[in-house]
Amino acid sequence: MIKYCERCGGTVTFRVPKGDNRERAVCDACGAIHYKNPLVVVGCVAERDGRILLCKRSIEPRYGHWTVPAGFMELGESLAEGAARETLEEACATVEIGHLFASIDVVDAGQVHLFFTGRLVSDFAPGEESLDCALFREDEIPWDDLAFSSGRYALRKYFEDRGENRGVHIHELRRAKLAASGESHDPPRPAATGDDRR
Amino acid sequence: MIKYCERCGGTVTFRVPKGDNRERAVCDACGAIHYKNPLVVVGCVAERDGRILLCKRSIEPRYGHWTVPAGFMELGESLAEGAARETLEEACATVEIGHLFASIDVVDAGQVHLFFTGRLVSDFAPGEESLDCALFREDEIPWDDLAFSSGRYALRKYFEDRGENRGVHIHELRRAKLAASGESHDPPRPAATGDDRR
Repeated sequence: MIKYCERCGGTVTFRVPKGDNRERAVCDACGAIHYKNPLVVVGCVAERDGRILLCKRSIEPRYGHWTVPAGFMELGESLAEGAARETLEEACATVEIGHLFASIDVVDAGQVHLFFTGRLVSDFAPGEESLDCALFREDEIPWDDLAFSSGRYALRKYFEDRGENRGVHIHELRRAKLAASGESHDPPRPAATGDDRR
Repeated sequence: MIKYCERCGGTVTFRVPKGDNRERAVCDACGAIHYKNPLVVVGCVAERDGRILLCKRSIEPRYGHWTVPAGFMELGESLAEGAARETLEEACATVEIGHLFASIDVVDAGQVHLFFTGRLVSDFAPGEESLDCALFREDEIPWDDLAFSSGRYALRKYFEDRGENRGVHIHELRRAKLAASGESHDPPRPAATGDDRR
């Protein structure tokens, strides 16, 4: 929750600015409006010879669980560049990015997770955020030991597509709906406003 | 540029936090790290009987120019919900969202523009941000009078696809590359860090 203006240090009040239709943090001193919007997470399902590159996390959340390389998109890069960068950082691996094939709305966390296909074209090794990296055939994927629901969904759709571009598979993770349906899901990634968000 | 901590009002210093690899605004007082990341713009190419719904903008940037309904994704909604909401706000129109078909990286503005297909299932009328709304056949689209390059790209690909889901068409708008190629493009939307951003 925003309490102070990042520009002038003044206090803020939450109100609906003129021409807007929802409450924003508006600076009492300089009038600056401070928006909060969803964040983009980009990932890459990288394949070589029918096997997929996964990383075992060395950080929270989900320390010790396996994940598709993915992370927050940064300013100054495209979605595809972000997906390749995350694969390089987490698995020291170079990928040729293919097509966008999965989009998961993690609504409660204020995130959209977008996954690309990729062709692994280098060696690999654990990056700073990984304990281990390895290649898995479909029947070797540690489905019950995956870090995040979004990555699990992406992997499932990746194998269903069998290398073809069948458009983007869209999925929604929202706590209220999951609770109503009696399902559970992984703890959400840190919220958009959170601290510990790598 | 962040100068003060939004949590405690302390001053910030730009430095690389432990475990990170790029400079962030870190609070000198409470240590909070303040990230800036790209924003998502969602839009909808809504069709009825072969004609596409466009809005004439009543606000800057690009006042008076035609646009595909689109705007910043908000917290608490999915991509598809955002695209439908923007269409409702700008054209008072209800759409059934189809598939995601275009992704444009507007790198210099720190934005990703994502466009869905949609089926217009209601009447329409100009919303607060529109002077006018109208339906256009492909040969009627005001190509030279469109507000944004990303919308122009989405419309072109929409017509190329002829209603089929051929996956996501990916395009990049980046000033350095455009300058090098001698091309020009529309003024970018306000940056992620900007004030006057809708």
